[in-house]
Amino acid sequence: MRAVVLQDGKLTVTEVPDPVPGPGEVLVEVIACGICGSDKSCVHHGEAFNAASNKSFGVDMIDFSQPIVLGHEYVARILEHGPETAGRLPVGTRVVAMPILVREPQVLIGFNGPQTPGGCAERMVLSEDLLIPVPDHVSDDLAALTEPLAVALHALNRIDTAANDVPLVVGCGPIGLATIVLLKARGIGPIVAADLSPERRALALEVGADLVVDPAADSPYQAWMGAAATDDPALMGPPTAVAGQLPLRPTIGFECTGVPGVLQQLLVGAPPATRIAVAGINLGEDVIEPGQGIIKELDVRFCLYYRPEEFAEVVTLLADGSIDAERLVTGHVGLDGVADAVERLGTSPTDAKILIQPGR
Amino acid sequence: MRAVVLQDGKLTVTEVPDPVPGPGEVLVEVIACGICGSDKSCVHHGEAFNAASNKSFGVDMIDFSQPIVLGHEYVARILEHGPETAGRLPVGTRVVAMPILVREPQVLIGFNGPQTPGGCAERMVLSEDLLIPVPDHVSDDLAALTEPLAVALHALNRIDTAANDVPLVVGCGPIGLATIVLLKARGIGPIVAADLSPERRALALEVGADLVVDPAADSPYQAWMGAAATDDPALMGPPTAVAGQLPLRPTIGFECTGVPGVLQQLLVGAPPATRIAVAGINLGEDVIEPGQGIIKELDVRFCLYYRPEEFAEVVTLLADGSIDAERLVTGHVGLDGVADAVERLGTSPTDAKILIQPGR
Repeated sequence: MRAVVLQDGKLTVTEVPDPVPGPGEVLVEVIACGICGSDKSCVHHGEAFNAASNKSFGVDMIDFSQPIVLGHEYVARILEHGPETAGRLPVGTRVVAMPILVREPQVLIGFNGPQTPGGCAERMVLSEDLLIPVPDHVSDDLAALTEPLAVALHALNRIDTAANDVPLVVGCGPIGLATIVLLKARGIGPIVAADLSPERRALALEVGADLVVDPAADSPYQAWMGAAATDDPALMGPPTAVAGQLPLRPTIGFECTGVPGVLQQLLVGAPPATRIAVAGINLGEDVIEPGQGIIKELDVRFCLYYRPEEFAEVVTLLADGSIDAERLVTGHVGLDGVADAVERLGTSPTDAKILIQPGR
Repeated sequence: MRAVVLQDGKLTVTEVPDPVPGPGEVLVEVIACGICGSDKSCVHHGEAFNAASNKSFGVDMIDFSQPIVLGHEYVARILEHGPETAGRLPVGTRVVAMPILVREPQVLIGFNGPQTPGGCAERMVLSEDLLIPVPDHVSDDLAALTEPLAVALHALNRIDTAANDVPLVVGCGPIGLATIVLLKARGIGPIVAADLSPERRALALEVGADLVVDPAADSPYQAWMGAAATDDPALMGPPTAVAGQLPLRPTIGFECTGVPGVLQQLLVGAPPATRIAVAGINLGEDVIEPGQGIIKELDVRFCLYYRPEEFAEVVTLLADGSIDAERLVTGHVGLDGVADAVERLGTSPTDAKILIQPGR
């Protein structure tokens, strides 16, 4: 089959052997697969993932000694049931699944060698137990957004969003936009969002932001405080130990850029008692002033992935029409376009989520 | 009266006018007052408090344009009721109180000019509404520890300690030791504690730590993981989104040093899903790797002060014998000894809490 292979920091479309489903696994045809910012990081700074993983766990996260096939945001169609499967879903069913193979030890799909390719390929293998069927009325594009939407849903859950919270979303790439979509679905707002790109700010408004700010021109934090200000005691946050608490509704912040320095900006700009979810991935060093967190009693909650039930909940939300995230998709490429699209990510002001269609 | 006056970065014992109680205030005689690490910071790096406060709030926190009298951890005796007081507690009653004067705007006692001195003086004024009487069987030393114990109690509450948590306390100065005392009172353990000083490690064991580590010789984090390891599914933490979760009980960390670099050590050393309370005050810059927080989904909750009900709860705990913190007091000085004692703080390995006795 054809696949985009990463080796020595280069992405190349190559002919590779079809993956073979192991016990309890199915062979699927990839319909679409999103390109994630972490894929770009993996291409250019893969060693940073392993350095971070080694520091905490003493093991590499990604096996760069072999060619690997990235792609963990896929929607696919069942082609064939492997050995020891139950055949619960018939051949031809469209499915999504968390990017894990239930083996001993577990395998992160797309990060560990050519035998377990990710979605940058014509075909891949998935664990039958993790398959979630996609209802017919949910488009391929929307289904391919399940994974980044699950990341955002998890970030919302990590900071225990409440109906009364006023959010600031910093960075309107796919995760920031997905966060806005889900905040809107929960009825939380007004939603303030910040991004340097006018195109992405326009997208943020389309998917649910109430107020967008260009941080090069205005302070997102002033706008946020304005949005959170209230004279109604019933809406104010609970009393905190912080002297000089302003009459504000409770505030929540989402760091969705992964850019060094943004966390410190949030610590300085956040109102007292703000809960901050860090969903943007910065694997390098960052400078903060802990005193800013202390004098305002801030919470910083780092976020990674999602729980299985959160992934499943996204499929339900997509199926029942609670969320419409189709506007997040700003482009489609075939396998031949992947290398270019990866380069564009994070630099092109007009791109949000680019989907790969291997059959294109 | 005699007071230790801070002016131009120098502490001098001086004769100053007695403070005059305003409406709703009482004049008290200071029995004892603890020296806090923040007092030393105030003497040497006072501008850092105002810089931090200005960055977030646009106002100075401390008025250094006038001579000030520090001291916010006091036990005192009522001398005289000012105008518009209810006289609820008779003259002679021993009292503690949060270091705030209920005026418009509120005044932080000890930080704002000579008219509202802190406990480094023979006498001070307090708001009658905030007075909490100290039962006769609670010693002066214990009563003077109410404030730092409230700081520690608040840190425990900020990270929602649960019976099953396994704590690491980094830094066994007064706040670290107070944290250990309160963890022990809640039945949370085993308690692992780390400090470079053998004397303070011995103190930590005396007040309730189960295991102490010299971070210059061994890894506190390895010891912590050992203490948290369990094979009993009933004791394990809730499942998280983190792959490779070790079979550990839930873990909580307390940063009680305020030393740059320690937060990053905690991020690297903490097991997945650890909740970290930052109680040590670092007003300067600090370098962290957010990726360490992300790959393990850590929580960092910055802590400041306490709520009024937490302050009152400490008095109850002291009164009913639930906590015994007297060992935290490692020395007493008169007003003449304050300047020396402040210099010793944080450098002498044998000191924890030094109390000022103005009548000494």
